[in-house]
Amino acid sequence: MLTRIDHIGIACFDLDKTVEFYRSTYGFEVFHSEVNEEQGVREAMLKINETSDGGASYLQLLEPTREDSPVGKWLAKNGEGVHHIAFGTGDVDADAAEIRGRGVRVLYEEPRTGSMGSRITFLHPKDCGGVLTELVTAAPTAEHGQEHGQEH
Amino acid sequence: MLTRIDHIGIACFDLDKTVEFYRSTYGFEVFHSEVNEEQGVREAMLKINETSDGGASYLQLLEPTREDSPVGKWLAKNGEGVHHIAFGTGDVDADAAEIRGRGVRVLYEEPRTGSMGSRITFLHPKDCGGVLTELVTAAPTAEHGQEHGQEH
Repeated sequence: MLTRIDHIGIACFDLDKTVEFYRSTYGFEVFHSEVNEEQGVREAMLKINETSDGGASYLQLLEPTREDSPVGKWLAKNGEGVHHIAFGTGDVDADAAEIRGRGVRVLYEEPRTGSMGSRITFLHPKDCGGVLTELVTAAPTAEHGQEHGQEH
Repeated sequence: MLTRIDHIGIACFDLDKTVEFYRSTYGFEVFHSEVNEEQGVREAMLKINETSDGGASYLQLLEPTREDSPVGKWLAKNGEGVHHIAFGTGDVDADAAEIRGRGVRVLYEEPRTGSMGSRITFLHPKDCGGVLTELVTAAPTAEHGQEHGQEH
């Protein structure tokens, strides 16, 4: 069951410059940053608010680490902008199975590792009205509201 | 001061079909619907979660009421997908003025009326890394958590 907007994923060419834009324009600070080699991205999570299910909503700023990564290819085609949206759930496996059963293509056979140790999968944008849609189950520590340090 | 992800605006060709997709796939229900003639859209707000600032986060599904509306022109160019993101603030006038002072183009001279009686303005996507960005101050009743009826 999807209980929150977990994050909005924004693709950019220059992560440091984009982080600085969100900081200087809106006052949003980096909550966490990491490199996800499997996804081919360097990313920064900006925490915007907490949510009524005990989680939080973030902006996820994404810079590709290689041109042939999914985000690298997307940027080459579309330019900078909103890359995907993500809903939070307590059980990504169960929800992905249910949604697959409703005829929506789920891109991974099994969930993979996302930001801050979360487990994630994606739904095909062509089955979701043009919206690349991610499902996220936060890591247990994040799910219970413990703060992550800034790791960069 | 921006204190929440207020909504994600998603442009579609057929609002009823898109509402049905979000209901049958994820279980999200319509919280409110309306026609905004000034913006040239018919829209449905799906409430996803409440937020730590006393507000809420929504998906806003948008169907143009005329081809020459901003959303109509955007759809003709881009097809269906994420049209904009919106941050909630207690004072859209003050924040818009401050952000304009930082060199970001604000599209309206004065905030206009958005969903559920809110006051809104938009920032130029070219100044925001390709992201059309809205600022929203909810109407007083919505700000204090009173439920809106479904109005269609």
